[in-house]
Amino acid sequence: MRPSGRTANQIRPVTITRQYTCHAEGSVLVEFGNTKVLCNATVEEGVPRFMKGQGKGWITAEYSMLPRATHTRSGREAARGKQGGRTLEIQRLIARSLRAAVDLKLLGENTITLDCDVIQADGGTRTASITGACVALVDALTYMRSKGILKANPLKHMIAALSVGIYKGTPIADLEYTEDSVAETDMNIVMTETGKLIEVQGTAEGEPFAFEELDEMLTIAKHGLRELFDIQKAALA
Amino acid sequence: MRPSGRTANQIRPVTITRQYTCHAEGSVLVEFGNTKVLCNATVEEGVPRFMKGQGKGWITAEYSMLPRATHTRSGREAARGKQGGRTLEIQRLIARSLRAAVDLKLLGENTITLDCDVIQADGGTRTASITGACVALVDALTYMRSKGILKANPLKHMIAALSVGIYKGTPIADLEYTEDSVAETDMNIVMTETGKLIEVQGTAEGEPFAFEELDEMLTIAKHGLRELFDIQKAALA
Amino acid sequence: MRPSGRTANQIRPVTITRQYTCHAEGSVLVEFGNTKVLCNATVEEGVPRFMKGQGKGWITAEYSMLPRATHTRSGREAARGKQGGRTLEIQRLIARSLRAAVDLKLLGENTITLDCDVIQADGGTRTASITGACVALVDALTYMRSKGILKANPLKHMIAALSVGIYKGTPIADLEYTEDSVAETDMNIVMTETGKLIEVQGTAEGEPFAFEELDEMLTIAKHGLRELFDIQKAALA
Amino acid sequence: MRPSGRTANQIRPVTITRQYTCHAEGSVLVEFGNTKVLCNATVEEGVPRFMKGQGKGWITAEYSMLPRATHTRSGREAARGKQGGRTLEIQRLIARSLRAAVDLKLLGENTITLDCDVIQADGGTRTASITGACVALVDALTYMRSKGILKANPLKHMIAALSVGIYKGTPIADLEYTEDSVAETDMNIVMTETGKLIEVQGTAEGEPFAFEELDEMLTIAKHGLRELFDIQKAALA
Amino acid sequence: MRPSGRTANQIRPVTITRQYTCHAEGSVLVEFGNTKVLCNATVEEGVPRFMKGQGKGWITAEYSMLPRATHTRSGREAARGKQGGRTLEIQRLIARSLRAAVDLKLLGENTITLDCDVIQADGGTRTASITGACVALVDALTYMRSKGILKANPLKHMIAALSVGIYKGTPIADLEYTEDSVAETDMNIVMTETGKLIEVQGTAEGEPFAFEELDEMLTIAKHGLRELFDIQKAALA
Amino acid sequence: MRPSGRTANQIRPVTITRQYTCHAEGSVLVEFGNTKVLCNATVEEGVPRFMKGQGKGWITAEYSMLPRATHTRSGREAARGKQGGRTLEIQRLIARSLRAAVDLKLLGENTITLDCDVIQADGGTRTASITGACVALVDALTYMRSKGILKANPLKHMIAALSVGIYKGTPIADLEYTEDSVAETDMNIVMTETGKLIEVQGTAEGEPFAFEELDEMLTIAKHGLRELFDIQKAALA
Repeated sequence: MRPSGRTANQIRPVTITRQYTCHAEGSVLVEFGNTKVLCNATVEEGVPRFMKGQGKGWITAEYSMLPRATHTRSGREAARGKQGGRTLEIQRLIARSLRAAVDLKLLGENTITLDCDVIQADGGTRTASITGACVALVDALTYMRSKGILKANPLKHMIAALSVGIYKGTPIADLEYTEDSVAETDMNIVMTETGKLIEVQGTAEGEPFAFEELDEMLTIAKHGLRELFDIQKAALA
Repeated sequence: MRPSGRTANQIRPVTITRQYTCHAEGSVLVEFGNTKVLCNATVEEGVPRFMKGQGKGWITAEYSMLPRATHTRSGREAARGKQGGRTLEIQRLIARSLRAAVDLKLLGENTITLDCDVIQADGGTRTASITGACVALVDALTYMRSKGILKANPLKHMIAALSVGIYKGTPIADLEYTEDSVAETDMNIVMTETGKLIEVQGTAEGEPFAFEELDEMLTIAKHGLRELFDIQKAALA
Repeated sequence: MRPSGRTANQIRPVTITRQYTCHAEGSVLVEFGNTKVLCNATVEEGVPRFMKGQGKGWITAEYSMLPRATHTRSGREAARGKQGGRTLEIQRLIARSLRAAVDLKLLGENTITLDCDVIQADGGTRTASITGACVALVDALTYMRSKGILKANPLKHMIAALSVGIYKGTPIADLEYTEDSVAETDMNIVMTETGKLIEVQGTAEGEPFAFEELDEMLTIAKHGLRELFDIQKAALA
Repeated sequence: MRPSGRTANQIRPVTITRQYTCHAEGSVLVEFGNTKVLCNATVEEGVPRFMKGQGKGWITAEYSMLPRATHTRSGREAARGKQGGRTLEIQRLIARSLRAAVDLKLLGENTITLDCDVIQADGGTRTASITGACVALVDALTYMRSKGILKANPLKHMIAALSVGIYKGTPIADLEYTEDSVAETDMNIVMTETGKLIEVQGTAEGEPFAFEELDEMLTIAKHGLRELFDIQKAALA
Repeated sequence: MRPSGRTANQIRPVTITRQYTCHAEGSVLVEFGNTKVLCNATVEEGVPRFMKGQGKGWITAEYSMLPRATHTRSGREAARGKQGGRTLEIQRLIARSLRAAVDLKLLGENTITLDCDVIQADGGTRTASITGACVALVDALTYMRSKGILKANPLKHMIAALSVGIYKGTPIADLEYTEDSVAETDMNIVMTETGKLIEVQGTAEGEPFAFEELDEMLTIAKHGLRELFDIQKAALA
Repeated sequence: MRPSGRTANQIRPVTITRQYTCHAEGSVLVEFGNTKVLCNATVEEGVPRFMKGQGKGWITAEYSMLPRATHTRSGREAARGKQGGRTLEIQRLIARSLRAAVDLKLLGENTITLDCDVIQADGGTRTASITGACVALVDALTYMRSKGILKANPLKHMIAALSVGIYKGTPIADLEYTEDSVAETDMNIVMTETGKLIEVQGTAEGEPFAFEELDEMLTIAKHGLRELFDIQKAALA
């Protein structure tokens, strides 16, 4: 039924490649099918001004799509002179989600920046970014511990993210572009490995959706997210 | 238990004043307790470039807080030279929600812009904006029909929005600032008067939340939104 | 003769509402007929860099029109990414005028920002802004004295502003939009309650004007400004 | 009494050099003592969008100070990414003044841009700009007539501008920087050669000024402006 | 003698991977040792305004470094709101060089944009970009011919680029970062496969260099560029 | 053969006028035929952040063309809100070249800014800028020594710059606009008075050029640069 031939709750093949580039303290290429995002974690001493003097760390994120990550070329934001609303919305989501995975007090006055650059897009770039960035974050934290910057591990739990939606009346998981572009509802779930929710963002693209449909999508998401946690763990093993 | 003395599912006094300013085709001052937002609807011929030639209309929104709508003054975005991520995120939400209330084909190649300017902020400015903007939109559509611009009413259903959250472990409705600033979870629900969902956005500000807590918040929201639809109807009567 | 039915030197009904919003140290809604401007005064410790170390305070202003304050919608400056020349010109005028009302040495190293946001425009927004902002400034100074921030009252004298112009050959006071848009000459006068001048800005929009006409306009302005000082005093009583 | 040794109503030596650069349709270097401004007039076919289809022309202006036109270097506006409020205010004044000198209908749908670039500043740059730009404008109009672009001369009258002020209690004409920086009042007058007013802009920099002082300044200005018209005429002879 | 252990005129291992991403009409990952640049070619109908109506095509380029392509993180240009001088300089060089490889008349009124995004940087990113972009360009031209957009092949000759420099007094080829950062002279050569020059850019970073040293660097460059042409050809075979 | 009637290696009449404006520490008007550039040197205490604490000085440059320096008016960069790529490229070249003329350690923690503003353009503005700015720099250094800011002269050698190109198959020196606009190759050489190279930038505008043609252009440049050094010396005598 799905253009991809997948079953409703089947996610795409997911691969996580660590140490993808050589300079970043954590560097992960995450692939959800044809969606490929490079997630680099940078560790820097100090925190932004509004956080100073609290003895706590900070985690932030920046997101971007290479101009030709998409079917047709989209203008480069640096050339246009500003980041679009979609970009800002996504990078705020990534940063917020990852902050929820970490005890900022244990991080000390250090900042970790997660750069999520989409090399190739086929739907679900924000959920792939979060899932990959969490692995890059773990590598960055390991680096910090190895350098004696951290005394304890600030990670509270792994997090992962998955898109679900209603496609031709049926709830499905991990939408690729051809599905996403015609789905009636689009939803992104960020969950902890302990099965709790960090973010729930559902949008009726066409018709409004019923509370029951929301429930069904949440159930499907929970299932797919379990698989993602296994893949993250295998990658980190 | 609540700083406001309200019960868990009690919303603030809500007032909707139509024709608040004299130039806009729809002009509504909406008040959720101390939160006051001016929602002006502007009707213009034509649609943005990417919509041209489809015979469909467009609905967009812009959101702003007056610099001193808040406890301390926040810099004016026009002076800083760009709109912040929070502003863009909110105005995208308002526009998307209102588009879901309207049959764009029946709107013809016309654009309605909803300007939501926060005069005074005390939590819940985005949900007040959506609730008020929907009334301003109705007035603008009435204006268009009276001018013969529209043949049929493009409104599919009224929409309203409400914030809910988990405060000291308990789900509550319509958070004001003192509650919002310490809530563990913050959620915004946009619903149709027919009881279906347009947007669900829940964020764990502190601790992740359980699927059961999500259910409880949705139940409370549904209840409060019913009241908002009654207030909208009374205002439009 | 005037579209408004007013006599040549008759100003519009003016109302000044204090404590219009709840957060600002001074908050005034000023109305000159259909022109409505919200003037919020914010008190902040410290001064801009170029004023540091002189033991003096600073007064600044920002001006903006809500997009639909006018007959047709004008683009939001925050969205366009810069403030226009007219906006900058007006806010410079407001700030300069109010600085002339205050002994900056008595203000200490504190800054007062006057935000003048036009809710509804019908001509004379800059003169209404100055007249209202002066009342908001007085409230902010009273607040500062009550908090022990100031030892003495820095206010040297009240100031008010009025527009005058030549309309169909006759000098008139307080032009509303229908008059302003066809006036041959447009002039804004800022005066102290002691009858001295702070700013005189006259512009020939169509034909140049004679020195005698300038005199006549000044006479009319002086008269109307007396009324404005009475209204300010009544509002502050 | 004046630092310059000049009498109260004595203007500085003024020179007007035409054809200062070779590409512009009108190119004038105007010098008021040590203040030197290059005024280039550019003729272009067509008018800005908001003027289209009215059969009328347009006159606009841009003003800039070279970074080291002043005692200390001021940052380059192009590098900072925006024009300051002072710049915008001045170029709006120059453009408005020159439009008042021309019958825009006789100009046809053509635009003349006056670029006023301050090579060296010693007070009065905006009045020198207007005075010089009017001569550049005349040369541009002559060029247009010689090319057959214009049938009749659109110039209604020459205009010139002069600064006056109150310095140590005495009204003086054509302030140079050392006078300007301590003057109590600063005023710029734009007049037609027929003795009528185009712009009057007076500002109390320190103490408010009396209506009588305004009169005295106007009288002095009228006198000095007569001299400027003679110098313009000699330059054009 | 070189930190890399290479001989003076030995270039790094160079690999060219075509079809690296799936959407672009030409997509090449080029690696010069640890320097990795993704070069995507986009074909679009039409040309920029200044080229319209000449019956000729256009080739342009955009260059960017991912924030963590370097040892320490550099700020994202999209977030800062403008492209830096170095970026603009490099993308102008890339575009100019590729235009010199193509007969724009045979391209018709079409535009090819080369996006060169540096995934990992270790010196020589601009020369790698040009070398890789030329291959992506060839693939884009092949695509255009297969679609019937082009009648003849507009490619005049392959081009490639190499950096050379003077390191501790000796001319060397293809500097990596540790060499580049201390080199006395830095030079980039763009050459055609027919042995002619497109660009020569040499800069004395420390001490000025002699005309003889320039000759030596050119000789070394010519040698290395021959190898690059072989690698390009193998990749395209 | 040349439109100018000059022989192939004949440069235009060059004049260097020192103390052209009165405020700058070095102020030079340099003319290469009809190309006229005002080069002002400003001395300021302190260095940019990235240079602090190294005990070294800094030299930077800014370049701009007055809008009507050219045949047709080009938009003012300050009005457009950003400097173009060509401008940034040129000012980076000027700054880099002048830094190569100075021992930054002997300059102490001071910054010299060279503002090169093109009053009139007829080809070769960047080479005229460098040649003139070097003289302005010498005057600024002399000023610093006279004020006791410098103990020793930081100037290592004079520098000058010249454009050469291939015009109708023949290498020529110092191209004016009519030659430059049709030249096949355009090259800029920055040299020290000791005959060594600082910058070599050659670009094939049309056809690629041979290594032999590069040699011929270098030879011609060397010859013309000798003349420029003589003219600089005469001006400084």
